[in-house]
Amino acid sequence: MSKYDITNLKFLFNPRTVAVFGAGKDLNKVAGQVMLHLIMGKYGGKIYPINPKMETVLNYETIPSIKNIPEQIDLAIMAISKKHILSTLEECIDENVKFVIINTAGFQETVLFDEGGPSLQAEFKKLLRKAPNTRVVGPNCMGIASTSSSLNALMGINPVPASKENLNMSFTSQSGSWAAVALRCAVQHDLGVAKIVSTGNELDLTCEDFIEYFGLHDENTQVIGAFIEQLRNGRKFMKISSEITKPIIILRAGKTEAGAKAALSHTGSITSSSNLYESVFKQSGVIEAQSLAELMDYLRAFAIYGAKNKIPRGKRVGIYTVGGGLGVLTGDKCEDVGLDVVSLSSETVQKLNQVLPPIWSHNNPIDLIATRDFSSTEKVLKILLEAKEIDMIISIVPFGIDQRMENLKNTPNMPKKIEEFNRKMLKAYHGSVMEHLLKLADDSSKPIILPTSLYSTDLPFQYDDISKLYDAGICVVNSVEDAARTLAKLFEYKESMKKKVVTSNS
Amino acid sequence: MSKYDITNLKFLFNPRTVAVFGAGKDLNKVAGQVMLHLIMGKYGGKIYPINPKMETVLNYETIPSIKNIPEQIDLAIMAISKKHILSTLEECIDENVKFVIINTAGFQETVLFDEGGPSLQAEFKKLLRKAPNTRVVGPNCMGIASTSSSLNALMGINPVPASKENLNMSFTSQSGSWAAVALRCAVQHDLGVAKIVSTGNELDLTCEDFIEYFGLHDENTQVIGAFIEQLRNGRKFMKISSEITKPIIILRAGKTEAGAKAALSHTGSITSSSNLYESVFKQSGVIEAQSLAELMDYLRAFAIYGAKNKIPRGKRVGIYTVGGGLGVLTGDKCEDVGLDVVSLSSETVQKLNQVLPPIWSHNNPIDLIATRDFSSTEKVLKILLEAKEIDMIISIVPFGIDQRMENLKNTPNMPKKIEEFNRKMLKAYHGSVMEHLLKLADDSSKPIILPTSLYSTDLPFQYDDISKLYDAGICVVNSVEDAARTLAKLFEYKESMKKKVVTSNS
Repeated sequence: MSKYDITNLKFLFNPRTVAVFGAGKDLNKVAGQVMLHLIMGKYGGKIYPINPKMETVLNYETIPSIKNIPEQIDLAIMAISKKHILSTLEECIDENVKFVIINTAGFQETVLFDEGGPSLQAEFKKLLRKAPNTRVVGPNCMGIASTSSSLNALMGINPVPASKENLNMSFTSQSGSWAAVALRCAVQHDLGVAKIVSTGNELDLTCEDFIEYFGLHDENTQVIGAFIEQLRNGRKFMKISSEITKPIIILRAGKTEAGAKAALSHTGSITSSSNLYESVFKQSGVIEAQSLAELMDYLRAFAIYGAKNKIPRGKRVGIYTVGGGLGVLTGDKCEDVGLDVVSLSSETVQKLNQVLPPIWSHNNPIDLIATRDFSSTEKVLKILLEAKEIDMIISIVPFGIDQRMENLKNTPNMPKKIEEFNRKMLKAYHGSVMEHLLKLADDSSKPIILPTSLYSTDLPFQYDDISKLYDAGICVVNSVEDAARTLAKLFEYKESMKKKVVTSNS
Repeated sequence: MSKYDITNLKFLFNPRTVAVFGAGKDLNKVAGQVMLHLIMGKYGGKIYPINPKMETVLNYETIPSIKNIPEQIDLAIMAISKKHILSTLEECIDENVKFVIINTAGFQETVLFDEGGPSLQAEFKKLLRKAPNTRVVGPNCMGIASTSSSLNALMGINPVPASKENLNMSFTSQSGSWAAVALRCAVQHDLGVAKIVSTGNELDLTCEDFIEYFGLHDENTQVIGAFIEQLRNGRKFMKISSEITKPIIILRAGKTEAGAKAALSHTGSITSSSNLYESVFKQSGVIEAQSLAELMDYLRAFAIYGAKNKIPRGKRVGIYTVGGGLGVLTGDKCEDVGLDVVSLSSETVQKLNQVLPPIWSHNNPIDLIATRDFSSTEKVLKILLEAKEIDMIISIVPFGIDQRMENLKNTPNMPKKIEEFNRKMLKAYHGSVMEHLLKLADDSSKPIILPTSLYSTDLPFQYDDISKLYDAGICVVNSVEDAARTLAKLFEYKESMKKKVVTSNS
């Protein structure tokens, strides 16, 4: 058997024809949902609902069997009863279908309490071995989406964000719920999406395959995200990820005994030791995220800074802050993650003396001192962007506080007059901060990051402003520790790229 | 000199008279701000603006000097030029003023670049030693607020949330910005506030003093929060915190070299080794938070579960989830923080078999399996509340997703019809989840916690529902790791209480 050409995945993500087995009118059933999503997502190819029991589904004429379809099927979707999967898969192979998505669950993941499921999955595997041209996504998965072909073949209730030029993630996930969460976060955080694949039990195609395709063959993808419980082919993973120069961010679960047990009954994954994975990731230049927040922060940051060539050269961070205490914690968090809270050069100190009150901290972090003179904030940022000893900047400014005060209307003990006076003042400050950030960021190759310094970013209130900042190459995160972590990962990536260049040159 | 009676702090928080030095009409100046806040906050005592240069301020008749005030002053506020502080402090001592707040900065914290500031602070100290009845908050601080006396004596722009019966935090902070952030978060997360104190350079009164007062003498305080850069009296801190049974949550900064340097130029604090603090906190049953998010989660959780007697007896956690992958990560995070992801008893498994599809995980975490049958969620929670092997519950349900879909209106590739259909469905699910959570939580002493499983809680969209959950004794957090961490801290607190009881009995 000749090696499978991974570039064929273009037919999975840009199919000319899609067959949906069991498509009916009940939108609470998966096949009906997928059919609806295909139509409403304005998929441009041909859709064939296969259902011998009814004549039309959602105004589409049904076909009784895949054998009756006159043309080649690129993608067949099976959200049908478990007991019909084997025979339907055989039909697809006979008809030379290129890709099959099996949404149905109840296979390898039932290994702890039901032998029937795993043995059925083993039969699929045997069948597929003899049919190298038919490839399978799933079973036990949520499906795929691809914005380049307006293909929404996902079950469940998931928005599919649009593609954004130079700011697209592609995401592959062994968990359907994580694929769904990643999509919701992408919308919320203004990240474009190229492709999403939920791989489920990975009977055939794996996360490794999709990372390879996204990394080496898909020009719409700028950053790659993955949620995994296990790698099925570590050697292959290391090979492809060391060839890929796009950032790869992975969130891994099933690391502990409790998690591993859960993974086994979730996607039938037998997870392996944490240390092994950590060293594999490190060697291949993969960025590991420890939580959803980290995953989304890193995807967003790499997309934004990557698009504007703002990956930092070194790890020397400059911090300026409207609150001294926030600065102290930020210093801690930067040092915790290995950044260098560098001493300011005497040149920088002298420049800062010109623009700050005499009692400013004379130190990094730079405490702007509680002031209502907004102009110093801009001047300080300008000085830090010029400072030779600084590679990256954390900017702790009262971004969005005007909106938060808006939300706090009618707070007890916050009388109307104070509210109005303060809101006006904060609006002016916010506006001035926005204006100079947008103006100054564009001129510099240093990444600037903005922690909102609140427990929640209240992002929905700030969509417009945050979009503008993203477009200018400035990333916004929830907290000072998120800012520190994210900058450290940018530097880690930069260092791993050096190694990759050395390796490929040697 | 006889020992100072800490219960005298009642005059600081419930003063009968307040004098504001330098109070003028310019609201961009601190004295003007504080004056305005006092008036608008409807402080019930008498306010004396002291200003020899104008006759009235905000309709209040000014007094040229504190000597002209005919009655005893409980609280004097000094936001005046640095050079006048010493003489004004002398006047206050002469007039036997009980408490003085010094907002003005430029003292011990300038030690790295200006000797004048620290030496001036030393002179204040000398003066105060001879005047044990006049106590000082600050310098270099934001002031105080106290809801029991409607006293808002804070500079800056800070909402002061109302007091809530049995759900009040009091917060003491060496950093003004952290005091401000804690207030904003309290509003956002529906936590009541009893008292707030920004202690600044702690010339005299320290965080230890306020923790003692909140913990042992203030019945309006249920949970105590603090932001510290250093403890000035570790021995005292250990003594009082081992006597206090209210939860004490501390966020500490200045732990690293970078942070310590920043702390020195922030409040003049010389921080000490991290290990020492950790062991002091551990021995005294203090809960340490590593970030703002943790601080606010713990304060909220202890208030909510404390009010309803839901501090867990053990650390065996039951998890149920609408997404398998979320469950796997939750299992990891629980084990990471020392919780026991306990095996389900055969009795519990049998009960779950009755209500879940045959392919459910048969395991803890309990994967509800993607379903549109809402009723199983309620049945599963009921079974877990009854299960003898479980002390605490993480409930991963699609809370608030209906509201999030609302926010995602007009998402590209999410056509109107799908949107409407899905929104209706999610609204029904959300409603059903809310209803049974509220109903079931009240009957049980087991804490239930709800991670929203999104990067941001979008809390403002959910105020009403979250308030209802809080009132029923259910805490809402951002993520599964926040849920795990918070439950672990509840158990840690429970264990430390056991030790305290043993200690005080022995």
